[in-house]
Amino acid sequence: MSSDKAGTGNGKPSMRDALVTAAFRLFLERGYEQTTVDDIVALAGVGRRSFFRYFPSKEDVVFPDHERCLADMTAFLAAGTGDEEPVRRVCDAARLVLRMYAENPTFSVQRYRLTKKVPGLRAYELSVVWRYERALADYLRRRFAARRDGTLQADVIAAAVVAAHNNALRSWLRSHGQGEASAAMDHALAYVQSAFGDAPAPAAQEQPEDVVVVVSRRGAPLWRVVQEIESTLGRA
Amino acid sequence: MSSDKAGTGNGKPSMRDALVTAAFRLFLERGYEQTTVDDIVALAGVGRRSFFRYFPSKEDVVFPDHERCLADMTAFLAAGTGDEEPVRRVCDAARLVLRMYAENPTFSVQRYRLTKKVPGLRAYELSVVWRYERALADYLRRRFAARRDGTLQADVIAAAVVAAHNNALRSWLRSHGQGEASAAMDHALAYVQSAFGDAPAPAAQEQPEDVVVVVSRRGAPLWRVVQEIESTLGRA
Repeated sequence: MSSDKAGTGNGKPSMRDALVTAAFRLFLERGYEQTTVDDIVALAGVGRRSFFRYFPSKEDVVFPDHERCLADMTAFLAAGTGDEEPVRRVCDAARLVLRMYAENPTFSVQRYRLTKKVPGLRAYELSVVWRYERALADYLRRRFAARRDGTLQADVIAAAVVAAHNNALRSWLRSHGQGEASAAMDHALAYVQSAFGDAPAPAAQEQPEDVVVVVSRRGAPLWRVVQEIESTLGRA
Repeated sequence: MSSDKAGTGNGKPSMRDALVTAAFRLFLERGYEQTTVDDIVALAGVGRRSFFRYFPSKEDVVFPDHERCLADMTAFLAAGTGDEEPVRRVCDAARLVLRMYAENPTFSVQRYRLTKKVPGLRAYELSVVWRYERALADYLRRRFAARRDGTLQADVIAAAVVAAHNNALRSWLRSHGQGEASAAMDHALAYVQSAFGDAPAPAAQEQPEDVVVVVSRRGAPLWRVVQEIESTLGRA
């Protein structure tokens, strides 16, 4: 993961940063719709072509760091040894998104307010969120490949992680980016882990996989259920 | 819930239906991008203004029933007595969306293929999915108002329900709308209910799928396992 500040590739302000800064100054002063790409490049003192070298459209300048963060997330998920508890791993991957927002609270809060006001940006944000969710789901699908309901479980857990992340992120943004974002995030993600995780914490000499599952029709006589358990446990 | 066929308000084809039919014929023949609203109204034999009376944009004609379905869902959720198990209730609400798709398999499969090919339609669909998810989350937030983590739980469960629904729906669409969609949907939603639901099933009128699942550590004493089964079965 990059530890650079948002939008900064090498520690000194880049042309890309200058474009983002100019764009946000104009968006806040005039409104998003009222600002053109020509206005942005004029304020930043660069040519129109430079803008489109960095950003395919005006919408993209509002979310300058998501591509990097998506790449970081994909790399993080690919870097595992395969022994990680899968739900914990996707929760940790989601934390990378929070970190990106928390790197630059003022910018994140400004963008949050802007996005709430402009339907086109809301739609853009949904498509970004969907890409994060797919990255998490793809990882889980691979990890759950041997499970009968692997794709179902992967999709559901990825959606739950994203929803928990966004719930905590929104609370932080609504509180003007004040305070520690990561405690609320830990709390939110712990809820998902408690619902879906294999084990809340791997204890020393526990074998978490060592469980007995008995599925029985409700109408089955109790002695049949007990017999089934006994034979599964090897005590019969 | 309306039992009308998709797009039909009163049993006979309407101008609205004629526009949808004409639009899809052209989308399939020429492609979505290559079809204009003028092409659609010409084929349907109506004026341009009629089109925009029913559909704000060309995108909206691709999803003619979502507004009705969203309204049905909201009405269904509002119509409860407040005694319903909340997770079960939102699962039942999600089934209304499947029903809309299953009312018209050929149309649903055509649209699925179209949406996969056109990024703008994919974005539109994400915004529709987001509105369904908000409707479910808003209901759960009201039901969980007294819980400490009510909004978190509401958001996470709503997202999980939508993801499970969409997983089963996509499987059905990919299999060309063949076969029974509702069994796969029941299976997918049961996974979410098992993770979050307060009660696995209402005990009153038992159904064939009414099974008891007991998960126990292998080391647990047998009497504890039996006690657990008895209490689950309500026989203790």
